[in-house]
Amino acid sequence: MAERTDEQHAEKMKKKQAAHDKIMATKTQEKGLLIVHTGKGKGKTTAALGMVVRMIGHGKKVGVVQFVKGAMTTGEKAVFDAFPDRIEFKPMGEGFTWNTQDRSRDIALAREAWDEVKRMVADPDYAMVLADELNIVLRYDYLPLDEVLAVLTAKDEMKHVVVTGRNAPEALIEAADLVTEMTMIKHPFRSGVKAQAGIEY
Amino acid sequence: MAERTDEQHAEKMKKKQAAHDKIMATKTQEKGLLIVHTGKGKGKTTAALGMVVRMIGHGKKVGVVQFVKGAMTTGEKAVFDAFPDRIEFKPMGEGFTWNTQDRSRDIALAREAWDEVKRMVADPDYAMVLADELNIVLRYDYLPLDEVLAVLTAKDEMKHVVVTGRNAPEALIEAADLVTEMTMIKHPFRSGVKAQAGIEY
Repeated sequence: MAERTDEQHAEKMKKKQAAHDKIMATKTQEKGLLIVHTGKGKGKTTAALGMVVRMIGHGKKVGVVQFVKGAMTTGEKAVFDAFPDRIEFKPMGEGFTWNTQDRSRDIALAREAWDEVKRMVADPDYAMVLADELNIVLRYDYLPLDEVLAVLTAKDEMKHVVVTGRNAPEALIEAADLVTEMTMIKHPFRSGVKAQAGIEY
Repeated sequence: MAERTDEQHAEKMKKKQAAHDKIMATKTQEKGLLIVHTGKGKGKTTAALGMVVRMIGHGKKVGVVQFVKGAMTTGEKAVFDAFPDRIEFKPMGEGFTWNTQDRSRDIALAREAWDEVKRMVADPDYAMVLADELNIVLRYDYLPLDEVLAVLTAKDEMKHVVVTGRNAPEALIEAADLVTEMTMIKHPFRSGVKAQAGIEY
């Protein structure tokens, strides 16, 4: 920016603002979104948590189903507990073995967690449903992708559903309204720093 | 994954888990992180908000300074209000003109907001400081990058500082411990959907 003059700078800013206002004026539709956070970077679950917080801040009810143990833990739990009527939190990730010996057990657990998601998606009380790390379970073929897509695309028009996890299936990205990829540019684990309260959990 | 057998699948998963455990065992250091969320995608402020929520959930105090009006609004505000002792929220984005006619005014406002960040960074009471959309102000040369970097790199070793906004300066990325880029894969504004409660604000 240093080589640009203040006048050019202001002119560009004004044009951008005008273009933005024009675009926003055409955006009149409110609808529930199918949102996907994927990629190898951090922030997928954390950004979903931010949306959950906004939603309960607006007085809406949110359902959270966690498919992988520990993805959401003590930090957010304490805050959720302050809003018991607005959030139903189902940590369903306990017990997965990720092992062929117990593949049938893992599939049963995935099914149980998915049944919770389906119930929340079908229940008009929930304005938003977060299926945290559902992509992982899909990646391991623990649930039929077709069934998951059928449920998510048949959701009530006003309901928001957020799906997180790396390796989102292409068909889910196709079906989604809003997809963000989190890319790791730099990570402190590389330099010996462990997971810490408030950052990772 | 369909073409891979269950056995190969389990073998890969076990190897990954073992490698992960080995890496994690070497991560013993706790330290405050300089975290940057950048990129054109959504989720930069939202993921920072998620970390703020985790931090206050752990009983820690957080300071939030917002450089751009409206980046954090009613949704999170209602939740912050439930934890008045753990969060100090300073919405400082009001009044910016982004206009050369008032460039000196914008610079003064940026300075005022930056002074709040500096105060929180210097105060041991705050476990985390979020400088929301600081990158925007740096992009417009409203604050000297050198001064900002000097303050952020001289922070207490245990303090977490989170900086958000697209176009993070290269030198800030260099100085940071953890950098995530949010990339937009798909955005519903493109198809006529407006910003909605609980999603964008």
